[in-house]
Amino acid sequence: MENPEVTFQDVSAAHERIRAHARRTPVLDSTTIDGLTGAKVFFKCENFQRMGAFKFRGAYNALSQLTPQAQERGVVAFSSGNHAQAVALAGRMLGIPRVIVMPQDAPRVKLEATRGYGAQVVTYGPGDSREAIAKRLAEEKGMTLIPPFNHPHIVAGQGTAAKELFEDTGPLDVLLVPCGGGGLLTGCAVAARHLSPGIKVIGVEPEAGDDATRSFKSRTLQSVKAPQTIADGARTESMGDVTFPLMLRHVDDMMTVSDAELLKTMFFLWERMKFICEPTGVLGAAALLQGKVDARGKRVGVVISGGNVDLAWAATQLRTG
Amino acid sequence: MENPEVTFQDVSAAHERIRAHARRTPVLDSTTIDGLTGAKVFFKCENFQRMGAFKFRGAYNALSQLTPQAQERGVVAFSSGNHAQAVALAGRMLGIPRVIVMPQDAPRVKLEATRGYGAQVVTYGPGDSREAIAKRLAEEKGMTLIPPFNHPHIVAGQGTAAKELFEDTGPLDVLLVPCGGGGLLTGCAVAARHLSPGIKVIGVEPEAGDDATRSFKSRTLQSVKAPQTIADGARTESMGDVTFPLMLRHVDDMMTVSDAELLKTMFFLWERMKFICEPTGVLGAAALLQGKVDARGKRVGVVISGGNVDLAWAATQLRTG
Repeated sequence: MENPEVTFQDVSAAHERIRAHARRTPVLDSTTIDGLTGAKVFFKCENFQRMGAFKFRGAYNALSQLTPQAQERGVVAFSSGNHAQAVALAGRMLGIPRVIVMPQDAPRVKLEATRGYGAQVVTYGPGDSREAIAKRLAEEKGMTLIPPFNHPHIVAGQGTAAKELFEDTGPLDVLLVPCGGGGLLTGCAVAARHLSPGIKVIGVEPEAGDDATRSFKSRTLQSVKAPQTIADGARTESMGDVTFPLMLRHVDDMMTVSDAELLKTMFFLWERMKFICEPTGVLGAAALLQGKVDARGKRVGVVISGGNVDLAWAATQLRTG
Repeated sequence: MENPEVTFQDVSAAHERIRAHARRTPVLDSTTIDGLTGAKVFFKCENFQRMGAFKFRGAYNALSQLTPQAQERGVVAFSSGNHAQAVALAGRMLGIPRVIVMPQDAPRVKLEATRGYGAQVVTYGPGDSREAIAKRLAEEKGMTLIPPFNHPHIVAGQGTAAKELFEDTGPLDVLLVPCGGGGLLTGCAVAARHLSPGIKVIGVEPEAGDDATRSFKSRTLQSVKAPQTIADGARTESMGDVTFPLMLRHVDDMMTVSDAELLKTMFFLWERMKFICEPTGVLGAAALLQGKVDARGKRVGVVISGGNVDLAWAATQLRTG
């Protein structure tokens, strides 16, 4: 598959496929945050999505398009977190066997939730290659490897989050989206182009994992070896041959925020918006609330991508922060 | 005012008054919680209401019905928390001067938020009578005292939360509502009677402040002196002459939960539902999740009444719990 385009028709078709199975997540706003930013801000709350993150959208869209034979043989996925749970849950709903390859030190809630969704979990240590383990399983058992972001069906599925947002809010001036491997960002950008022409779509990464930002500025695919950031959903080393070209075509700007800014934003949203969000989930919100985006007088959409945070870890951060 | 009835027409009229100013809060569900309880559970999330609790509904409904003269002279309220913020915010929206009498040791977030809404805050120590302070202010300045629960306009306003819930879900079999002074409980019961005939409405109190439960069983108004519970919104010593008769007429059962059950439920909902809720807010949810309600096979509504919890305090509870 060479640089496939993903169109709004693909996002629309994905929405029809997942509509009865994914949750239509609420769009929340706050007069306090409008006052602080001088903007009208809408949060699309994918932390309330099934399994606690947007990833369910892409996973269900991809799995539901496998042939009956492929569905019977099952799927394999490697993921440090939310993609694992998404494939585990979507596979259960579709009756597809699934093996998830996860790091030994993945957040406890994510390991438990993946097992809770009835998937077989295979863990690996720091010296192992998760890709190699997953590929071996795919070859030995004829299972289909479901990539976490670099596939048009994944991208189209994630774009349904932005489609729902615009259906609720109408056109916006700015859309801020977290960026790991770029599946959510590019899917949302495709939807935004169609439903809100003239909008500025901005992807936001952690400082320590700024591969997509550097790729965007240099127009050459860049990578970062094992980025060290609390945004565990954005520790991807680089975008892929599907998401990188889509970013160049559909995204207007990229920026980064620090881990300290993520933590500060996360707890601010817990306190003021009353929702639990994870560090990766607030990448876009952090860019807005730390004043990195020219938002005054504008209508701004912010995708909160997930809420799967270990509460015990968060409690420690709150006390030391 | 002697034992006034509050009717569904009062709740409906309140809804028309507050509709453009209060937030229509989302109703959230969870397949995990449905699986655990064997029920179909709907959470009405008043933690997402303006100022983080249902109290805004009643306060706005009461304040908007004051005469222009009374509005000009202003209002006074005494409250340990959410009612204070509700009167502060509703008064600001209506351009009404307001003084709030709060305990020195009220949660930091509630003191700050009340001042943030532009109200004058007068604090009192353990030896002072807040009622006396508030009454003196009312007499000296001609301000109207806005009671936290014992007034038909407050009750009717709070009932709009249940009206919205039933509009979203259709009829239910059981409705679980937190009970402090009974404003939310009785308002919701009035709405439930009309919109979901045959429903069982259950009020839930903290064990240490079981005055309403004992009042319900004995059909005589009981009180508890200074109840010691983490459910700070339910530390009321007794119901009032408005809410007590309404409870006897419209509520089907009362029960209690322990502080330990509240904490456990609160963090469970943080983790699984991804919303921040306060101990008082999860009274109804705790009764359900601790197996105190016969819910299997039923459609169950649960009002989550608020989310104004001090995160630093919660972090301490999480680490010691």
